[in-house]
Amino acid sequence: MKKIAVMTSGGDCPGMNAAIRSVVRTGIANDIEVYGIRQGYKGLIEGNIDVLTSREVSNTIQRGGTFLQSARCMEFKTEAGQKQGIEELEKRGIEGLIVIGGDGSLTGAKILHEKYGIKIIGMPGSIDNDIFGTNTSIGVDTALNNIAHAVDMINETASSHDRTFLIEVMGRNCGYLALMSAIACGAEAVMVPEIEYNLEKIIDKIKVRYEEGKSRSIVIVAEGAGSAIDFGKAFQLIGGFDTRITVLGHLQRGGSPTVFDRILATRMGAAAVNGLVEGRTGVMTALNGRDIGYVDLDYVLSNKRPLDTKLLEIAEDLSL
Amino acid sequence: MKKIAVMTSGGDCPGMNAAIRSVVRTGIANDIEVYGIRQGYKGLIEGNIDVLTSREVSNTIQRGGTFLQSARCMEFKTEAGQKQGIEELEKRGIEGLIVIGGDGSLTGAKILHEKYGIKIIGMPGSIDNDIFGTNTSIGVDTALNNIAHAVDMINETASSHDRTFLIEVMGRNCGYLALMSAIACGAEAVMVPEIEYNLEKIIDKIKVRYEEGKSRSIVIVAEGAGSAIDFGKAFQLIGGFDTRITVLGHLQRGGSPTVFDRILATRMGAAAVNGLVEGRTGVMTALNGRDIGYVDLDYVLSNKRPLDTKLLEIAEDLSL
Amino acid sequence: MKKIAVMTSGGDCPGMNAAIRSVVRTGIANDIEVYGIRQGYKGLIEGNIDVLTSREVSNTIQRGGTFLQSARCMEFKTEAGQKQGIEELEKRGIEGLIVIGGDGSLTGAKILHEKYGIKIIGMPGSIDNDIFGTNTSIGVDTALNNIAHAVDMINETASSHDRTFLIEVMGRNCGYLALMSAIACGAEAVMVPEIEYNLEKIIDKIKVRYEEGKSRSIVIVAEGAGSAIDFGKAFQLIGGFDTRITVLGHLQRGGSPTVFDRILATRMGAAAVNGLVEGRTGVMTALNGRDIGYVDLDYVLSNKRPLDTKLLEIAEDLSL
Amino acid sequence: MKKIAVMTSGGDCPGMNAAIRSVVRTGIANDIEVYGIRQGYKGLIEGNIDVLTSREVSNTIQRGGTFLQSARCMEFKTEAGQKQGIEELEKRGIEGLIVIGGDGSLTGAKILHEKYGIKIIGMPGSIDNDIFGTNTSIGVDTALNNIAHAVDMINETASSHDRTFLIEVMGRNCGYLALMSAIACGAEAVMVPEIEYNLEKIIDKIKVRYEEGKSRSIVIVAEGAGSAIDFGKAFQLIGGFDTRITVLGHLQRGGSPTVFDRILATRMGAAAVNGLVEGRTGVMTALNGRDIGYVDLDYVLSNKRPLDTKLLEIAEDLSL
Repeated sequence: MKKIAVMTSGGDCPGMNAAIRSVVRTGIANDIEVYGIRQGYKGLIEGNIDVLTSREVSNTIQRGGTFLQSARCMEFKTEAGQKQGIEELEKRGIEGLIVIGGDGSLTGAKILHEKYGIKIIGMPGSIDNDIFGTNTSIGVDTALNNIAHAVDMINETASSHDRTFLIEVMGRNCGYLALMSAIACGAEAVMVPEIEYNLEKIIDKIKVRYEEGKSRSIVIVAEGAGSAIDFGKAFQLIGGFDTRITVLGHLQRGGSPTVFDRILATRMGAAAVNGLVEGRTGVMTALNGRDIGYVDLDYVLSNKRPLDTKLLEIAEDLSL
Repeated sequence: MKKIAVMTSGGDCPGMNAAIRSVVRTGIANDIEVYGIRQGYKGLIEGNIDVLTSREVSNTIQRGGTFLQSARCMEFKTEAGQKQGIEELEKRGIEGLIVIGGDGSLTGAKILHEKYGIKIIGMPGSIDNDIFGTNTSIGVDTALNNIAHAVDMINETASSHDRTFLIEVMGRNCGYLALMSAIACGAEAVMVPEIEYNLEKIIDKIKVRYEEGKSRSIVIVAEGAGSAIDFGKAFQLIGGFDTRITVLGHLQRGGSPTVFDRILATRMGAAAVNGLVEGRTGVMTALNGRDIGYVDLDYVLSNKRPLDTKLLEIAEDLSL
Repeated sequence: MKKIAVMTSGGDCPGMNAAIRSVVRTGIANDIEVYGIRQGYKGLIEGNIDVLTSREVSNTIQRGGTFLQSARCMEFKTEAGQKQGIEELEKRGIEGLIVIGGDGSLTGAKILHEKYGIKIIGMPGSIDNDIFGTNTSIGVDTALNNIAHAVDMINETASSHDRTFLIEVMGRNCGYLALMSAIACGAEAVMVPEIEYNLEKIIDKIKVRYEEGKSRSIVIVAEGAGSAIDFGKAFQLIGGFDTRITVLGHLQRGGSPTVFDRILATRMGAAAVNGLVEGRTGVMTALNGRDIGYVDLDYVLSNKRPLDTKLLEIAEDLSL
Repeated sequence: MKKIAVMTSGGDCPGMNAAIRSVVRTGIANDIEVYGIRQGYKGLIEGNIDVLTSREVSNTIQRGGTFLQSARCMEFKTEAGQKQGIEELEKRGIEGLIVIGGDGSLTGAKILHEKYGIKIIGMPGSIDNDIFGTNTSIGVDTALNNIAHAVDMINETASSHDRTFLIEVMGRNCGYLALMSAIACGAEAVMVPEIEYNLEKIIDKIKVRYEEGKSRSIVIVAEGAGSAIDFGKAFQLIGGFDTRITVLGHLQRGGSPTVFDRILATRMGAAAVNGLVEGRTGVMTALNGRDIGYVDLDYVLSNKRPLDTKLLEIAEDLSL
């Protein structure tokens, strides 16, 4: 293998730059030329593809986002679009492709592998932690720390009586970010899409806390469970609480990646290149305990990651 | 003067702990006993008042919020409530009172001074920077840095095409936080309550930026100008933009105070104690250039702080 | 089991407060009274032991250090001291003990278990990541992020020509912190106690980088490998480099724990209490992949954690 | 005036990028072409000079360091070097020059103005706050917050008994950073070059604190007052203290600039361009209270900035 390409696709996440850097430099250390595809599948189709040098990825490991950018691409869902993409790779003699992204991006990678026989390795990149088959994905740890930092700040100022702070966090259909940040920040309650909530019960619990002398309550709301603004209105109406809302939005995706995400992305990037060299294809790099391994894209994409209910119990026990 | 008291009132702000600590230790250095009143005017009426020792304010200078807490108090608006408060001070032989807070809190201080002859000194504490008569208030610098940090994070992830990020910041009727953070973060547009905005003009400007090749736009919305969520809908409808919303909420008030706020609070705390010792009353400590001085509460409360229009021009020129 | 005690011992680390909080609240959820021992083995001997309530551990999960404090204790190395400690526990009817700390602290725990039959469970707390038998210890992730944040800052200012920045990090005899932060920050070289370094080779490598156009070099020095100041002198003498030194010191231990450390400490705290309830003793809680389990203190203390040489190779490949 | 140039020189500081960006965009708003000179006076002599576009300064306001880089330049101290520099400007028709830097850099600017009649405006950029004639310089506020953040972290972990932490901070011959960070972090003692210290007195003070129950002491050492490592040895020998050392080094210069520095740099950059347009030369932009004005370079360079002794007293009073 002499020439490979790398791209980031879908929602960006912190650590994508570290992943690209690792692919480029591991490639160079293995005498492989690494091409960068800009703007994901859109750039693949449009031929927005250039060789990346070692210097071009200098000073990127600590940067959030992805310097290769990402974009949506409807065209790639058509056969014509896919064939155009394949052509752009063949034209340059590119023999292998590394795709960093979430479920949607990995589905695209699977198609390229299965329908067109392209040697392909995926890397899980998504702050939502909704990718099956790996202990965690690139970006999750940073997003969690971003959320915790924000909740800590709200916590520090939340000294006035009887206020209920509702903080809406990302995660799409997955309550992981909400649950983990609720545990990590000692929130009084958490609302996740995987578990049916009982508004009255939560309101009663918070009332008991106030009666016991707590001066504020923090509720983490996963975006998949509903809108913090709507829940806030309900809390006000039903519980009579004085509520304050924060919608964290994209600041969760931003910021410099944590060491965990930098190392994970670096190790997975090296594993992706080594996997191609060893002849692997149709797989995703995966964290398994302390090891980086490979799992079939088929297996990844045909399963849904469950929420760890053990952690839900811990969240309940510790929010005394 | 042998006994004085200090309290924080209204919305809390970073630096209030530094201010209390400075009052306590400057008091002690002047052989004055300093009482802490908990929960503002509410605690004054309820007699929630205790001597503060030097050790009790150890390790507080770097903490956000106020360990004396703050609360709303309807009762203090009545004459009965005010007289009750006066009594609690007299009972303990407290001869002077230092009040740290915003316009509402300082109005309470003015009443105590004018109607009851209590020796009183105010200190400006409010993240909104809406207090007249001082260059700035305790908490403003920290809030601004909190906002800028959040906007920087959103900026870093905002790589996908044609997205418009709307970020709602605090400030009540004052656009200062919005304007300053817009300049500091290179926002494309800012909406403040002091200036009538032209939605079409802003949308056109952003469109031009996109056509010039910018891949994202950031708009800072002062809460006093409207809701970021509503503006976002308008941008979507009129401009056809793909919008993303962040409502920063109370995280703006949180966090460890900046050095500027710690020093400002420390110097003002010392000036407040020294002012009482020198016989001053009915005044507020104020920053004037590099000096800490005193201004009449009357003067402070009968004027409205204007927005610096020179800075608006800079914001416009530099958002090219 | 109706009464248990918890203490932190040895060098403090971020996450110890989260661990104590988890022990206290999991205890309460299991109808167990939890005593806090202040200042480690010293407090045990001196009977500095009190019941901890749920409210006392409120708002501690996000704080660095340990509110139970830690101290060295020569006396506990004597039989008389140990017996005195046992007596203090028995006097209060305390049936189980949870010790959070590093190798030295766990050795103390093992003695109490083996010589005196106390039911004991250890929890690994040490930023050095030198504890065998667990994937990682409480505090490591935070320390690494503290270091990376500092190195990133130095990196950003390091624009002038031909300067070599040497940054000394903690880790005692263990190069883990140095190696991981070197990878995470893209350092040009790393010096760890486990690997013999070749000063000439490192200097040559840096010279080549300068000739290739790099404008600065960063070298991470593990304290166990030597002093950054001494290495700096050698680099100046042998390589003719213009060097700048940073000795990070205790700021590595400080700061709010990361989400990873908060969750790890919380889960281990719950596991420690549950372990005592289930009748376990003489074991340490351990992270094994995504699971929290138990390993014998014997096994932990009779093995030395090796450095992951695979990561050394990655560090070498990626510092191109 | 149709063409001007801007450069950063000497030690870099956070806010330099914000200053350059402001010069470029204010220039463009005034129909002036702005050239960037890379690597300070070195780049001036070597003709490393190019037009800067608005897009080139996008996303720089939040970055530390200076993208134009900085370098030492012996050659510029010779008449030949200076003439070469002048020629490079004239060749391109550049009519005015803006120099951002410290005393040394401003001295160079003064020479160009006085000897060669170049229209020149200086901007004070130095973390040391040693530039006379302005309330403060670009970079000081960020450096102070960097230091405070580091000291806070050390403070949080400093729970073990009787330890004395010595933290060495920058400032060259100026104790400002040390004094302000000592006040802002509640340090027990501070050593600055402007004031003769009495080691025995400081040691006695710390001993008294320990006897009163304080569990740790923090001493800030200005680099101009001596080495923290040497002082640490003295404290150990004379006071018998258990000392721990941190040498913060270049992390003080790094990091994203604070809002204060971004706004200061932005306003000064606009003022520098406007000053050239209005025909000013031989002056430096200066902060005076809330206003940006101009002071003669002569006046700036022939005076030495004194340490505010009033703040020394506050530091003393509040470190109870």
